[in-house]
Amino acid sequence: MADTNTRKRRGGGRAGAAARRGAAVIDQMPWNPPINIDRPTEPLGPEGVEAIHDGAMRILEEIGIEFYNQEALEILREAGCIINGDNVRMGRDFVMEMVAKAPSTFTITPRNPNHTIEIGGKTMLFGNVSSPPNYWDMEIGKKVPGNREMCRNLLKLTQYFDCIHFAGGYPVEPVDLHASVRHLDVLYDKLTLTDKAMHAYSLGKERVEDVMEMVRIAGGLSHEEFEASPRMYTNINSTSPLKHDHPMIDGCLRLARRGQAIVVTPFTLAGAMAPVTMSGAVAQSLAEALCAIALFQYVRPGIPCVIGTFTSNVDMKSGAPAFGTPEYIRSTQMTGQMARFYGLPLRSSGVCAANVPDGQAVWETSNSLWAAVQSGTNMVYHAAGWLEGGLIASPEKFIMDCEILQQIQRYMQPEICATGPDEIALEAIRAVGNDGHFFGIQHTQDRYTTAFYQPFLSDWKNYEGWEVAGGIWTAERAHLMFKEIINSFEAPPMDEAIREELADFVARRKAEGGAPTDF
Amino acid sequence: MADTNTRKRRGGGRAGAAARRGAAVIDQMPWNPPINIDRPTEPLGPEGVEAIHDGAMRILEEIGIEFYNQEALEILREAGCIINGDNVRMGRDFVMEMVAKAPSTFTITPRNPNHTIEIGGKTMLFGNVSSPPNYWDMEIGKKVPGNREMCRNLLKLTQYFDCIHFAGGYPVEPVDLHASVRHLDVLYDKLTLTDKAMHAYSLGKERVEDVMEMVRIAGGLSHEEFEASPRMYTNINSTSPLKHDHPMIDGCLRLARRGQAIVVTPFTLAGAMAPVTMSGAVAQSLAEALCAIALFQYVRPGIPCVIGTFTSNVDMKSGAPAFGTPEYIRSTQMTGQMARFYGLPLRSSGVCAANVPDGQAVWETSNSLWAAVQSGTNMVYHAAGWLEGGLIASPEKFIMDCEILQQIQRYMQPEICATGPDEIALEAIRAVGNDGHFFGIQHTQDRYTTAFYQPFLSDWKNYEGWEVAGGIWTAERAHLMFKEIINSFEAPPMDEAIREELADFVARRKAEGGAPTDF
Repeated sequence: MADTNTRKRRGGGRAGAAARRGAAVIDQMPWNPPINIDRPTEPLGPEGVEAIHDGAMRILEEIGIEFYNQEALEILREAGCIINGDNVRMGRDFVMEMVAKAPSTFTITPRNPNHTIEIGGKTMLFGNVSSPPNYWDMEIGKKVPGNREMCRNLLKLTQYFDCIHFAGGYPVEPVDLHASVRHLDVLYDKLTLTDKAMHAYSLGKERVEDVMEMVRIAGGLSHEEFEASPRMYTNINSTSPLKHDHPMIDGCLRLARRGQAIVVTPFTLAGAMAPVTMSGAVAQSLAEALCAIALFQYVRPGIPCVIGTFTSNVDMKSGAPAFGTPEYIRSTQMTGQMARFYGLPLRSSGVCAANVPDGQAVWETSNSLWAAVQSGTNMVYHAAGWLEGGLIASPEKFIMDCEILQQIQRYMQPEICATGPDEIALEAIRAVGNDGHFFGIQHTQDRYTTAFYQPFLSDWKNYEGWEVAGGIWTAERAHLMFKEIINSFEAPPMDEAIREELADFVARRKAEGGAPTDF
Repeated sequence: MADTNTRKRRGGGRAGAAARRGAAVIDQMPWNPPINIDRPTEPLGPEGVEAIHDGAMRILEEIGIEFYNQEALEILREAGCIINGDNVRMGRDFVMEMVAKAPSTFTITPRNPNHTIEIGGKTMLFGNVSSPPNYWDMEIGKKVPGNREMCRNLLKLTQYFDCIHFAGGYPVEPVDLHASVRHLDVLYDKLTLTDKAMHAYSLGKERVEDVMEMVRIAGGLSHEEFEASPRMYTNINSTSPLKHDHPMIDGCLRLARRGQAIVVTPFTLAGAMAPVTMSGAVAQSLAEALCAIALFQYVRPGIPCVIGTFTSNVDMKSGAPAFGTPEYIRSTQMTGQMARFYGLPLRSSGVCAANVPDGQAVWETSNSLWAAVQSGTNMVYHAAGWLEGGLIASPEKFIMDCEILQQIQRYMQPEICATGPDEIALEAIRAVGNDGHFFGIQHTQDRYTTAFYQPFLSDWKNYEGWEVAGGIWTAERAHLMFKEIINSFEAPPMDEAIREELADFVARRKAEGGAPTDF
């Protein structure tokens, strides 16, 4: 047991070794997505589950969801739903029949198959912050619009940290790139700087098709191979309350038809876009997600779908969104219960309202990450790097969050709680007796290198030692580490022919004008 | 339901109102110790519980614990234990018979009966940081020895915050007070500045007797009234591995004989004073605690006892203690399972290794506070204000921690997850439909003042608003709040005759020379 553990933690796998090649700034835990061994925290009794389910179904049956997508309306009409203009009402039998077709577990295989992720069951996966328009770091010292270099640096962190298991959306929007070609440049950066599971924004057919093609090329795949199993995914939000916009549905339909995975995440802020009561906000969120998943299952039965939750609340004094609050934690747990009721994998997030990587940022983020643990979340979006309610990406926050994520990864290793005779250690206790210590004994010597979590950012020196080392607070330590990681970063290997094919594709599509920007 | 909630959250109770009188720097939640409605996280299966229990019992049966207390040795000999020098071995039948006499729930009634606490069951109670020799605040900007003013200021925070339910040990050691009279001055300060449940250090008979007498006087109690039910408590640590020192046992016996409560908290750092394996460290901790509790139950059957855990690990590179680690969380959860097995209330702590109130301090503290939730902890020691592994007390950290504690308090309010028709809110969703928002509707208006947690320290403004307000990071905001609270603090009311009696007692005992300092 101890030996296996040693190999696992220190040796890394092929994936772990590859990720750290030539870039050993820190001694991190190897690639090893945690298995959530805890029983979920379930605030709802059976009658609570039934009440929320019934609420979600009655929203779909009696109120309906608007689909601003003609194709979806035609499909749902054919499926027997009641269509009035853009409004779609669907019966619970249909919804439940369709949702039951979605797999409870599936894989996404990126260009590095050692970074294949399994989504569902008890696996927890962490992704980088996605989509902030702005950037903050300690050197710049203020909030600034994102650019390509910032985006590339955050992608390097995404690749560098083995506790980041999938590459979400753009870790910051590079607004220096024209919107018509931004997806081409960023995907080129993502596919060359990282080798983890990829994401496409559902923002118009050209972007979605371009990204699928680039992921196919990067994987060295035929079209048949690409479509045979998920190689990437998209994530869409509904437009709460009770609307699905054209491009999101369009993108999902395109991915579904090519066998790729879909995450549907309503963004229901209680008191603003959803009821002020959390169970009502959860019911509405479920209704918005389930009707879309039903559509995708009707189009392509068995297509992998994940149900997302982003139910938080607003500050009723200012209308500002709040994150990582007690209400956020409970709504995430409630949605987790409902996701298990529907047999769907769950996505939640690592979130905060704080504007800088300070104490508040950490308690809000810790609350949301513990909510992910407690809810049985499978995909944790924005798990590293998010500030200001998702409006700012920060490399310091990214690195601080990775320390928390690694601790969750270690927390989920069952050997911590092993209770065999070697762990109860009666003979070691007898040998030390009443008057010694355990530092030097064989039982300790045999285990000390792997017995405990080793942090890379936490400073466990006493005050005097910490002071001598500069008296540096956490965020600044993270900043120094950020610079070191970026300076020594080596991209994961890519076949030169593939890299050229990707570059040619980008050049050709740019020459064609990229994608429309009329969204 | 909503009405009750409104009254509860906004009105406070008499205790809440009293605590805030004339000192409304912040709008805090009223006194209302949380009821832990979550099912505990239980990493051990039944065979794991049995293995740890068997390990603890075999330590007591085969290895024995040293009691450096002649009186205890005599009592335990009389009870049938096997005594060899200071070493005591006791059979599991005796231990289990004695431990079974301890109540699973009891109360401590301080001088303000509105601040009576119930310890055990599902109640969670938070206490201030206890016993750091040093102090740090942002104005001083470095670690300095504690003094009486600092101690008084931290006591004011202890009283001010309604989420602090009991007054632990000295929130910082006032080393400017001579050790012979320190307990007299600090208890005078504690009893006049706070009206919450009191603690006595078990550091020699004079101190313990003096503190009991002062608590009795402050409560306006006869000796019979004082002894009729717990009015205070002591907390002792064993000297791991496997030793109990004279003054701790002596103090406990004195309190037990006068009907006061006892917390026994071994401090077993895995890899140093306990096995490097967490279940071994937990088994040893249990053995050290249970033998003392067995002694106290033999002396005074039914005396309230709490089992404490302080099982963490050392950094095996430096020997430095680590806190709030994955191993700490799991050992706290395991000890929680064992405490329920033994039918004893549980104490754990809010802890960190960080030297300043930064991001690391918050993730370590959050981890330990979530561990308290998950373990079913009843008393959370050091819940506010602890830094550097307990060597530093900080007012900024105190206030930051109170924000986290309040969130746990709110998290435990079952109404967040209510699922009645009013909460599912189908009619509100119907009324808003696909194209509105929930800000203005009646369903929101009826509930918005109490629907969500309102922070006092978290800043939910957007970046620009935060910047205009000074761009102040969390710890500095806490510092400003600290100054305001101290400047406007009003002590809880105390009958002038009682205050004089207390002062006279202090003067008399000082004239007598106080307590010996040869410990």
